[in-house]
Amino acid sequence: MERTEIADLGEFGLIHHLTANNETRNASTVLSVGDDGAVIDHFGRQTVVSTDLLIEGIHFDLSYTPLKHLGYKSVIVNLSDIYAMNATPSQITVNIGFSNRFSLEALTAFYDGIYAACEQYGVDLVGGDTSSSQKGLIISVTAIGEVAPDQYVTRKGAQPNQLICVSGELGGAFLGLTLLEREKKIFAETGAQPDLENQAYIVGKLLKPEARKDIVQWFQENQIQPTAMIDVSDGLSSDIMHICKQSGTGCVLYEDKIPFNEEAREFAYKLKLDPTACALSGGEDYELLFTVDQKDFEAIRQNPYLSVIGYITPAEEGMHLITRGGNKHALVAQGWNHLR
Amino acid sequence: MERTEIADLGEFGLIHHLTANNETRNASTVLSVGDDGAVIDHFGRQTVVSTDLLIEGIHFDLSYTPLKHLGYKSVIVNLSDIYAMNATPSQITVNIGFSNRFSLEALTAFYDGIYAACEQYGVDLVGGDTSSSQKGLIISVTAIGEVAPDQYVTRKGAQPNQLICVSGELGGAFLGLTLLEREKKIFAETGAQPDLENQAYIVGKLLKPEARKDIVQWFQENQIQPTAMIDVSDGLSSDIMHICKQSGTGCVLYEDKIPFNEEAREFAYKLKLDPTACALSGGEDYELLFTVDQKDFEAIRQNPYLSVIGYITPAEEGMHLITRGGNKHALVAQGWNHLR
Repeated sequence: MERTEIADLGEFGLIHHLTANNETRNASTVLSVGDDGAVIDHFGRQTVVSTDLLIEGIHFDLSYTPLKHLGYKSVIVNLSDIYAMNATPSQITVNIGFSNRFSLEALTAFYDGIYAACEQYGVDLVGGDTSSSQKGLIISVTAIGEVAPDQYVTRKGAQPNQLICVSGELGGAFLGLTLLEREKKIFAETGAQPDLENQAYIVGKLLKPEARKDIVQWFQENQIQPTAMIDVSDGLSSDIMHICKQSGTGCVLYEDKIPFNEEAREFAYKLKLDPTACALSGGEDYELLFTVDQKDFEAIRQNPYLSVIGYITPAEEGMHLITRGGNKHALVAQGWNHLR
Repeated sequence: MERTEIADLGEFGLIHHLTANNETRNASTVLSVGDDGAVIDHFGRQTVVSTDLLIEGIHFDLSYTPLKHLGYKSVIVNLSDIYAMNATPSQITVNIGFSNRFSLEALTAFYDGIYAACEQYGVDLVGGDTSSSQKGLIISVTAIGEVAPDQYVTRKGAQPNQLICVSGELGGAFLGLTLLEREKKIFAETGAQPDLENQAYIVGKLLKPEARKDIVQWFQENQIQPTAMIDVSDGLSSDIMHICKQSGTGCVLYEDKIPFNEEAREFAYKLKLDPTACALSGGEDYELLFTVDQKDFEAIRQNPYLSVIGYITPAEEGMHLITRGGNKHALVAQGWNHLR
């Protein structure tokens, strides 16, 4: 395989190479990459900004993560934050630092993923910085979105008796990670080729997640305004606790209402893992978790991609899960804590 | 000295600690840190976004950089980019990744510098991400600014016969770096305590630079619209070449017009360095380099912080420096290339 050294291009050559095919999709993008900053026009709308730092060895493992998928996911995790504000992403900036182990082909694959996500979600890459690093790959993405004035949704608007809803299915990304880590370990010990057991669903949920653009569009079309919202990045348990703490409420979740993919459930049993625990503590699902007024129940029920999984209570009633067997357990925040 | 382990706080505890005293200064900051994104209001103005990645061992050396200064400078380099667009910064986001070698006290000192810069320049810290890293300190700052519609200034508007101007004085940061690197080497070899020879000016230019807010305000007050602008981060030579290449022009610079601090000039001679070379190739001065129409000459001349250093020519005349002795040399881009 061809290998071009980044050093042969220099920084400006690299930037030119990486942005030569960058398209502008939004009328609001007045000035894109190639200057000190990007210019974004506004028409009486509000801007939402979100940013994330992803570091090799902490947030991702290149031994089983294709660089194109990583580029795609780096964008998705930020867009998901914008959607979780009930806003529509419009621009991103991308900073990357990379050691000399990365070739131009590797960085091009990474940016192919970035651009694929931009195209899929209709956003513009409007700036960024590239740098060498002493070790590994470092990615920092900032996403900017628009929302009609005062239509944005925070974590703190939930009130007692409101419904707790979630999009899609939970726990898949955690199972994908478990499978890939298992195969990595087996490969290290025995040299055996990875056997992903045709688990395309869970591997895909981890390596190439999608953000729930469709749900935010559906809110607008159906004039539904969630009262609180967050994306499921730390796990259902941790994330509903964020909503409850910031809203000053408690909650009740029903185990049998938590949506789970059938293939993923089978695979969890095979690994002797509890699917509910995967959903509660797994994280990285990038589904939308939100609360709505009871008047919206009928509309929510019509949407096959949404599940009502519980309701908000006064704070003094605490935060609980009602199990299939009818037992009541206090929720605990078990999200990934990468600082430990 | 007290040392608190970051792991004892957890990520959310750390964020709370670091943002508890975060103030909101701009009416446009509708929602600040503590949610998935920040909300920024607009009133028919345009938004400018800029972002930078700073990596330990590549962009800074903690053996002689106080963390508070580093926090301050991390903000300044981004604000400088916003000013270089003729815009006024209003918000920043800050991502940091740090290894377990950093204590809470160390991170607090870093954020003290961030907040000091926010206060000095009237900007709001509205979001960010904190993470562990496998090695060293990683900083990614995104700055957002406002500008009246179509008043932003890019690198590509320069035209023949327009004047080339620069704010402040050049070359100081490079001399500061040279001095600190020399003392670091001596300390490593002999254990001798650093002797900074009372060079507060050049050391300050490197470790605690300022962004030229005053110049952008002055443009507005005097209704001067630069035709092209960039901040001097790579060195005068490299940065004027950016303007010329993007504008499709050439230029002539006069060596005797390049502004240099008197103390710094003396120190350059002492180190047997050519002050002009320091200004042309040094970089990191964060001064504003811009072009204006000749009609603005009188106004520019009235501002003691601005120097006219040359003029724009047609592209076919090339890019040249006229030396004190009257010789004509082609400019070469010798800016710091950290990818080599």
